[in-house]
Amino acid sequence: MNSLLNKDYLNAEYKPVDKTNKSSKILENMDSLFDKLDLKDGAAISFHHHLRNGDFVTNMIMAEIKKRGIKDLTLVQSSIFPCNEPLVPLIEDGTIKNVITSYMSGPVAQAISNGKLKGTLVMQSHGGRARAIMEGSIKIDVAFIASPATDVHGNISATEGSAFCGVLGYAYADSIMAEKKVAITDTILDYESKTEIPSERIDYIVKVDKIGDPNGIISGTTKITKDPVGLRIAQKTVEVMVATGLVKNGMNYQSGAGGVSLAVTKFLGDYMEANEIKGGFASGGVTGDLCDMKNRGLFEKIYDVQCFDLKSAEDIKNDPNHISMSAEKYASPYHDPIVNGLDFVILGATEIDTNFNVNVTTGHDGVIMGGSGGHQDTAYGAKVSIIVSKLFQSRIPLIVDRVGVISTPGETIDVVVTERGVAVNENRKDLLELLKSKGINAMTISELKELQDSIIGKPEKQQEKERRAIGYMEYRDGQVLDVIYEAK
Amino acid sequence: MNSLLNKDYLNAEYKPVDKTNKSSKILENMDSLFDKLDLKDGAAISFHHHLRNGDFVTNMIMAEIKKRGIKDLTLVQSSIFPCNEPLVPLIEDGTIKNVITSYMSGPVAQAISNGKLKGTLVMQSHGGRARAIMEGSIKIDVAFIASPATDVHGNISATEGSAFCGVLGYAYADSIMAEKKVAITDTILDYESKTEIPSERIDYIVKVDKIGDPNGIISGTTKITKDPVGLRIAQKTVEVMVATGLVKNGMNYQSGAGGVSLAVTKFLGDYMEANEIKGGFASGGVTGDLCDMKNRGLFEKIYDVQCFDLKSAEDIKNDPNHISMSAEKYASPYHDPIVNGLDFVILGATEIDTNFNVNVTTGHDGVIMGGSGGHQDTAYGAKVSIIVSKLFQSRIPLIVDRVGVISTPGETIDVVVTERGVAVNENRKDLLELLKSKGINAMTISELKELQDSIIGKPEKQQEKERRAIGYMEYRDGQVLDVIYEAK
Repeated sequence: MNSLLNKDYLNAEYKPVDKTNKSSKILENMDSLFDKLDLKDGAAISFHHHLRNGDFVTNMIMAEIKKRGIKDLTLVQSSIFPCNEPLVPLIEDGTIKNVITSYMSGPVAQAISNGKLKGTLVMQSHGGRARAIMEGSIKIDVAFIASPATDVHGNISATEGSAFCGVLGYAYADSIMAEKKVAITDTILDYESKTEIPSERIDYIVKVDKIGDPNGIISGTTKITKDPVGLRIAQKTVEVMVATGLVKNGMNYQSGAGGVSLAVTKFLGDYMEANEIKGGFASGGVTGDLCDMKNRGLFEKIYDVQCFDLKSAEDIKNDPNHISMSAEKYASPYHDPIVNGLDFVILGATEIDTNFNVNVTTGHDGVIMGGSGGHQDTAYGAKVSIIVSKLFQSRIPLIVDRVGVISTPGETIDVVVTERGVAVNENRKDLLELLKSKGINAMTISELKELQDSIIGKPEKQQEKERRAIGYMEYRDGQVLDVIYEAK
Repeated sequence: MNSLLNKDYLNAEYKPVDKTNKSSKILENMDSLFDKLDLKDGAAISFHHHLRNGDFVTNMIMAEIKKRGIKDLTLVQSSIFPCNEPLVPLIEDGTIKNVITSYMSGPVAQAISNGKLKGTLVMQSHGGRARAIMEGSIKIDVAFIASPATDVHGNISATEGSAFCGVLGYAYADSIMAEKKVAITDTILDYESKTEIPSERIDYIVKVDKIGDPNGIISGTTKITKDPVGLRIAQKTVEVMVATGLVKNGMNYQSGAGGVSLAVTKFLGDYMEANEIKGGFASGGVTGDLCDMKNRGLFEKIYDVQCFDLKSAEDIKNDPNHISMSAEKYASPYHDPIVNGLDFVILGATEIDTNFNVNVTTGHDGVIMGGSGGHQDTAYGAKVSIIVSKLFQSRIPLIVDRVGVISTPGETIDVVVTERGVAVNENRKDLLELLKSKGINAMTISELKELQDSIIGKPEKQQEKERRAIGYMEYRDGQVLDVIYEAK
């Protein structure tokens, strides 16, 4: 019921206001901030990862928290990078008890795989994170938003300031749902034009020396492969794509940030240019190379949830066809997100099983070195999801009986392209027929596995050791997809 | 607590998904929509007024509701215009029981003033409406969003489609907080660039023939006065503004849409041009004339919650310095909104009392003909709020002992400028001194009233008739500001 319809308005008394006494959100320093926040043991705090491996904010805030002796925190950080190494001792001493993230690499991932986390690890997709926050499955007490710039009211810009990162797509949900929202920035403007997060979502602003190192935005996963085998797989993938008949005007496309995936994007662009094909949109985490393709007219628009490099962050400043989006708009399992409009997504894998379940979370040693990110979301959304990978590397096979951690469920993966053959999911008979009719020798994944095993030999059955569960991989819709175990 | 940390994940079972079975938000027709909505008697439904007097959507939806016999509804419409005349019989027959709005003119206002509403009338400011929706004091079951265009996912654009209105600032809160959100549109695009309301806020899309008449966006209140007395007041107002010392580079400015207020804007622009002053931002409901001033370099930016005419809606399409904003960002009593950055706001009044309380809700006959809109919000926010009005008209006085409805509380009004004199609020001694030092003969409002009464005579004490309360005027922070009575 609408409470304002039930007021005893005839007997209400009005208390005058004082317009000369307006409060500013800008706080003097961290002490004033933590006084206001009154953060308690057991609270959940969130961070985004748009500054990627150049982020200073998470470490800075966690050091303040450690100083104040607050403990048993749940860290809700959209991704964790090697630069977050200073969090390791805070995990070990119980300052951080639980971790909820979509991607992890580096010392924190290693420490958690080694069983250092006292509580639970939950890994999600980018869309699943947004869904969980918006529906309240994750409750955040304080969102600390690394803000390249903000105006005096708290309108946050990602295209101004020295650590501009272009987009803040992963911080939107936090900014709507967290109990308290703090902009941590090194640049306060009078007023700004391109607002990523509007002032009504921000409670406090704290200015610090530097929120990050802009050069750290470029992370190692976003370079095109130079390996000839990888390039051959990429060429083959474009052939498969063309064979589906979907490479045509208006095609919508995304690729992951792995080296082979990026090579597919390049070769696809060459094909489109040669055949005068103009795509609709490209989406995802966005590289400067993808911006070049848009600027050459190969795609009409880019929908961008995260800039992978400075060139991309530069491009979004001025081109209205380079459009920022929230993680929800991008990939939420509800609300028909942008990923549902994709014709293709090109993705990597460390392992895949004969049910097409994909692992991008742990390496062959069982140590966490990644996570779903948008993998789950785009595999579900795209008409054709394609895994590109070498069939084996140093005698370590791609195709296994059981992947270490199911990161993306097999029923959403359509095709696997390797240097030795292409496998099509049996639930996509339409695709199988199509590829065969175009002369592409597609096989079942079991056949591809047999081929693989015939070359490198069947791996010896490892003695299954009892391992301790440390958390789980969540599917984007909230289901438990798989258990994550301590490594070795 | 975070529910996803407490899952029995070791024993959870995963149920595979079907990616070939995605649902679209686009519904076939109104019948499918109302089946989905399952709207019950007593529900609250909301509409925005960006199509102003050219809106077709409210009437169309209410006719569907009437057809289905749903009744006792609370109508949460940001403003109501003469085009909403078809709602009068629905008020009379109890289809609409309560009305919550920020502005009303025309037959609906007349009918409600005549006591036709069975429930309660609540009138709010634009900022107050956003606050009430966001905090849950208004609970909306279904928000029907008149959408100039939407893409297939439900990303709503206000700059494409034939009834483009530029901005949808008053619909943001509804789109976040309503239980169900429906885009009513006449234009469905594959993909669009300039999103006003993102797809994650939209549940359903229904296509209709026409959502409105673009020419109706220009409403009668947004024309500059031609009356020489009005022009004299406007000139005087600019003198007062200059005397405060705040007319300088970086000045932030807003005016209401009344004829004299718009004349102030024009003369201020002339003064700024002649004196090479470049303002910071102009804000508010925005006219094409204001866009011209920006384009001439007199203001750096425009923050726009609503376009008052097609020229303004055209201007925002392409200029990144013409920035759309939500009602919350504009005017919420919390979160340090844009209005708090204003140096000046120029506003109208039908009546003002000797405590500076202003009525813009009812006419001298007690019939509702307006409402606060942003009046309360900007009066509070601006360093100097100025009421511009003739001191009397056809022997009807501006200054009265008690205004019909207090729409904006006196403690937030700083100056009154009339053709016969300027009054300064006694709580602004700083301004009084400043004006006097610049040779402006400012007086108290009691002195100005005496002057007024000495010319037109003291009005005869009317026999106070017992009148029925029909609702109340809410202050932006949620307080009851005044009671609204039935007219005559």
